Amino acid sequence: MTRSPAVLALDVGGTSMKGAVVTRDGRPVHVDRWPTLPAEDTVRAIVGHLRALSLVARDLDVEVVAAGVVTPGMIDEATGTVVYASNLDWRDLPLRALLTEATGLPVATGHDVRTAGLAEQLLGAARGVDDFALVTIGTGVAAALVTDGRPVTGAGGAAGEIGHIPMVPGGEACTCGQFGCLEVYVSGAGLARRYAARSGRSLPAEDVVARLGADPDADVVWAEAMAVLAQGLVTATLLLDPTTIVLGGGFTAAGEALLGPVRTQLAAGLAWRPAPPVRVAELGSEAGWIGAAAMALRSAGLGDALRTWDRQAFTATTTP
Amino acid sequence: MTRSPAVLALDVGGTSMKGAVVTRDGRPVHVDRWPTLPAEDTVRAIVGHLRALSLVARDLDVEVVAAGVVTPGMIDEATGTVVYASNLDWRDLPLRALLTEATGLPVATGHDVRTAGLAEQLLGAARGVDDFALVTIGTGVAAALVTDGRPVTGAGGAAGEIGHIPMVPGGEACTCGQFGCLEVYVSGAGLARRYAARSGRSLPAEDVVARLGADPDADVVWAEAMAVLAQGLVTATLLLDPTTIVLGGGFTAAGEALLGPVRTQLAAGLAWRPAPPVRVAELGSEAGWIGAAAMALRSAGLGDALRTWDRQAFTATTTP
Repeated sequence: MTRSPAVLALDVGGTSMKGAVVTRDGRPVHVDRWPTLPAEDTVRAIVGHLRALSLVARDLDVEVVAAGVVTPGMIDEATGTVVYASNLDWRDLPLRALLTEATGLPVATGHDVRTAGLAEQLLGAARGVDDFALVTIGTGVAAALVTDGRPVTGAGGAAGEIGHIPMVPGGEACTCGQFGCLEVYVSGAGLARRYAARSGRSLPAEDVVARLGADPDADVVWAEAMAVLAQGLVTATLLLDPTTIVLGGGFTAAGEALLGPVRTQLAAGLAWRPAPPVRVAELGSEAGWIGAAAMALRSAGLGDALRTWDRQAFTATTTP
Repeated sequence: MTRSPAVLALDVGGTSMKGAVVTRDGRPVHVDRWPTLPAEDTVRAIVGHLRALSLVARDLDVEVVAAGVVTPGMIDEATGTVVYASNLDWRDLPLRALLTEATGLPVATGHDVRTAGLAEQLLGAARGVDDFALVTIGTGVAAALVTDGRPVTGAGGAAGEIGHIPMVPGGEACTCGQFGCLEVYVSGAGLARRYAARSGRSLPAEDVVARLGADPDADVVWAEAMAVLAQGLVTATLLLDPTTIVLGGGFTAAGEALLGPVRTQLAAGLAWRPAPPVRVAELGSEAGWIGAAAMALRSAGLGDALRTWDRQAFTATTTP
């Protein structure tokens, strides 16, 4: 009997990896995650996880026809080479070639945030939208920019680095070596650092967010973050004219404390044109592997099966 | 005897219109220009110029098969509607439909700066480049952004408004109603205004540029303009990762006084990635109608004949 075709999907992050087996009709029949160990050989770990997912697929009686693997960093999508990924300490790593060789599968590789943008476009907050920006605010900040239905990759795979656009001339120092970058003020790391500098208390960013309205120091650094974020979105809107802006990452836990000021200040910062609506990403931290699955299904000639994916089934499968 | 096919091209500017008759092999056989009169019905003037060009074409024994017309403003390129053009006082003007009706020709319409980008890509400083930004610095500032070979138009035709990205929080007032926009510091209008405020002397921007090195007030406002421009190009580079940045418009008359500081500060503002090379546009104020001709040739199914255009012949034809 012929087994039904499926793909493997893997989202390689600095702290964890998320994997899935997804059938040709876009259903995740298995979802798994593993920590990314700092000292280990990450490529070897990726190969190990893909093999583990292959074994699961065999048990589930589906035939793996391709894999999709997404990573952070500067990715040359034409060659599948990771030009530079600071978190993973990779430089000029021919990832696609290495994984294809090690697994014997056709492997599609991509950039984690751009791929999350693809997932949000197929299944999430940007469904049916051809021009949008997904801005993911986590430890750092990056954007997936989509124009006329196509992701903006850039000449060297480095497009979307909204976290480092200069927002405050002569502003605070960034880890990148510049001053006044957007993510100095807006990211989880930046918020925690600025709160500590102001209050003398070291708290993770989520705790700073939890104190909004009850802790004046938290309120001040948050308000400053919102002002810088809104100006950054003004910039992205003026350059790219998106239909919609989608915000993702840890900051979205703040809910209305994020959306309220961003919407107001984005509209105020755009004098002669309407502001695009601002929505919260719908796929959360699942967007990476969902996008990886979509890439793998496309590369295997199985089209955009994820478009027809039953969101209910997805939630049922992936909620721990 | 069958006449050889040709297209009409028209660049509609706030102060002048430039028109041409271009043959199917991409040769301009006639070039003309007319002032844009403030009080007149601009659509009627455009129709008149297209008719005049048609008569010239008949005399030259070529058969006009299409026209290309480019304008400033927010252009919905799908429908050919000018959503808003402040200089021409147009709002929701169905330009393509009006011109098609009035001339009986298939008319392609487009945005002047984006179309200049197409011309630079086919014939000028961005030949063979798939990812670039053409930043035109004249009275105001706008950009043609090209990614993966395709122009970034945006959802409503309003992409590329780099002149209004916020560069200086709480900075000087812009005519757009905001504060600290890039073109407050960098444009011809901004340079002249800032020089006058500093020196008490009213001079056009080109005279301010001519005094560089001899007039400390000119040097200061120019240096401030270069700093803001470089930061704006840092922003565009981080978001779009272009292979090349092309500078056009009146500021390019400054030559090395423009390129030197921009190149140095762009490189300094990009911490962990190389700066794209910065070049001067090659087609100058001819880029608009050249791009309009390219659009018309494409719309008539005559391909990118301009690619094969003999630059020598072009210079000979268009130099007054």
